[in-house]
Amino acid sequence: MEPVFLTNLLIVLLAAGTGRVISRRLKQPVVLGELVLGMLFGNFGLVVVTETLNNLADLGVLFLLFSAGFTINLEEFKRVGRHSIIATFFDVLVSFVLGYLTAKFFGFPEQSSMFIGAALMATSVGIQVSILQEFNMLRTRIGAFILGIAIGDDVAGILVLTILGSIVSLGGVTLEKIAIVFVFAAAFFLLSLTWGMKLIRRLSRGWVMRRESLLLLSLIIILIFGITAKEIGLEIIIGAFVAGLILGQSYFARGIIEEISIFGDAFFVPIFFIVMGAGFDLAHLSVGYFTIALIVAAILGKVIGCGMGAKFVGFNLKESLAIGTAMIARAEVCLIITSMGLRYGVINQKIASSILAMIIVIALITPPLLRTTLRALNLRE
Amino acid sequence: MEPVFLTNLLIVLLAAGTGRVISRRLKQPVVLGELVLGMLFGNFGLVVVTETLNNLADLGVLFLLFSAGFTINLEEFKRVGRHSIIATFFDVLVSFVLGYLTAKFFGFPEQSSMFIGAALMATSVGIQVSILQEFNMLRTRIGAFILGIAIGDDVAGILVLTILGSIVSLGGVTLEKIAIVFVFAAAFFLLSLTWGMKLIRRLSRGWVMRRESLLLLSLIIILIFGITAKEIGLEIIIGAFVAGLILGQSYFARGIIEEISIFGDAFFVPIFFIVMGAGFDLAHLSVGYFTIALIVAAILGKVIGCGMGAKFVGFNLKESLAIGTAMIARAEVCLIITSMGLRYGVINQKIASSILAMIIVIALITPPLLRTTLRALNLRE
Repeated sequence: MEPVFLTNLLIVLLAAGTGRVISRRLKQPVVLGELVLGMLFGNFGLVVVTETLNNLADLGVLFLLFSAGFTINLEEFKRVGRHSIIATFFDVLVSFVLGYLTAKFFGFPEQSSMFIGAALMATSVGIQVSILQEFNMLRTRIGAFILGIAIGDDVAGILVLTILGSIVSLGGVTLEKIAIVFVFAAAFFLLSLTWGMKLIRRLSRGWVMRRESLLLLSLIIILIFGITAKEIGLEIIIGAFVAGLILGQSYFARGIIEEISIFGDAFFVPIFFIVMGAGFDLAHLSVGYFTIALIVAAILGKVIGCGMGAKFVGFNLKESLAIGTAMIARAEVCLIITSMGLRYGVINQKIASSILAMIIVIALITPPLLRTTLRALNLRE
Repeated sequence: MEPVFLTNLLIVLLAAGTGRVISRRLKQPVVLGELVLGMLFGNFGLVVVTETLNNLADLGVLFLLFSAGFTINLEEFKRVGRHSIIATFFDVLVSFVLGYLTAKFFGFPEQSSMFIGAALMATSVGIQVSILQEFNMLRTRIGAFILGIAIGDDVAGILVLTILGSIVSLGGVTLEKIAIVFVFAAAFFLLSLTWGMKLIRRLSRGWVMRRESLLLLSLIIILIFGITAKEIGLEIIIGAFVAGLILGQSYFARGIIEEISIFGDAFFVPIFFIVMGAGFDLAHLSVGYFTIALIVAAILGKVIGCGMGAKFVGFNLKESLAIGTAMIARAEVCLIITSMGLRYGVINQKIASSILAMIIVIALITPPLLRTTLRALNLRE
């Protein structure tokens, strides 16, 4: 027994639990409370981020992306997805460009600026769902459209992260390199979604398994896909996402959907948020011009980009603005891209702290902002 | 992302999954397959036991003991338990003495011999339950009696381990030291089972929680009890056991019993078995006289000790022999005591390998042996 590890783990879990309770009380998303508590515990030296905690946090990231893939219903997405995909295109383009230009304006180097742009692309499906539920809009046309874009944002964010990762590790950007990564990524997606899916469907058809074995098997599948992705030069997390996508369409799905999310949310995912929070040095948390500019860029990116997309596919102006406003919250994927940037050495503590401040501020202002925008809308619908 | 850790983890989980499938096919207990696969993977250099894996294995031990505590229904145990407690006394005494004397006979030092004796005390509740189910005896008078002894054996094993642990770390044995540990252990049990239980019952009464939060809270409680136990000089695992005992009696219980065992069995517990198996060096696995003597001592300890106990409380000779035979299988707690002995440096690789060989051989011969013993009995009942 390693009492040091266990004591450290206890503190991390206490921080997560406290963050969760406070979030629920204040009707804020859980991730927010866990991040803030992680930041406090980390900066007061209560949490020591060891190798084991980092490894567990990595598993948390895999669980997050597995769940993101898992919740996508491919059939339904194909049906309602075309409009969402068009809007996603506007959305991620404007968000990326605004983030990139903001960073450039403040003099950050090329690769850092690209990571900052990428971090602004993603949105938070989790926060989205809870907001849509609060406004009773989850099953409406606008609700389905918003969720479609949110999923598209996640996929785009992960894809761009893969490209950025290979640019950084291969050094320098050439169109040829980007093309190679793109081809590999496309091949990985296609092969996984055709042969991989068929294989898993066939294998899983007749199997009756205990739930713990089902869970063990899913973990094995997540790791196999993640490591395969890494082997062919993509990111591990894209493998976890594809594994989720495939298992979500398989016969496993019914038995496993609850287990996996409980398993992740009870242990690995909160450890990731706490470790992320603890990694931000409060001394670096400048409320300087860059942080403010980043917040404005993040909000404008979604309101303009997503709003343009919504308008383009036929929503009216008020609806388009509401849809754009509903997308401004960031969380999981934005954090994952930031932590990847930190690991690659492309993003420093100062930038990471600004991104964290942006996430927290936007999460806090989203509900009142959205309430105002939606009130006009709800009366009409 | 740490691809090395993830690859290593994948191999461990693959070993566990394979061991599980093979065990089920051969109708052997799952722990056996996982141990053997761990041994094979470890000795062929496929599994590298890192700090993280060791930490995860430690959590596996806590989960095992938490579950052991959790499955005990205190009210029912009070009702049927008196006879079982008397039999447990004979059982653990004879098993310990036979193990101790065997080790002494082969010239092992005092403290090693005591650990070997302690390792023979415990039985395997998991194997017990599956055997009793196979013979349709789980709900019979003999079945309840056997389970009662199995639980008693676990408790006795953990208590003795606590005493041995403090003897080793304090150095030397004095009655005074044993008395102090005993008083602390008794106080810990009593306070936990009275105030602790009341506190948790009261706290948990009105709470409605999501399952993932329930699970997070249980982990926190396990760690708090474990660390408290360590702080007052007991073993961490005894804290986990008591936490399980208390939560098992609380309002939490209904919501959590399945989750906790799935959570543990899908990840932490198989990692413990694989890491244990990987730790045994096949080069040290002597099939020498000591191993054979240990197997004989282990079998005789239960058949004689437990048989005597059963006879004493009123079973006839045939029944008593069958009850004794049903108890010979060892697994979890025996492994835990062995791994503790290794950590304290009191047990070496050679002894540990002999104990592992004993566990495997006895697990393999238990079903046929028991079938023969029970056939005569079943005809009569």
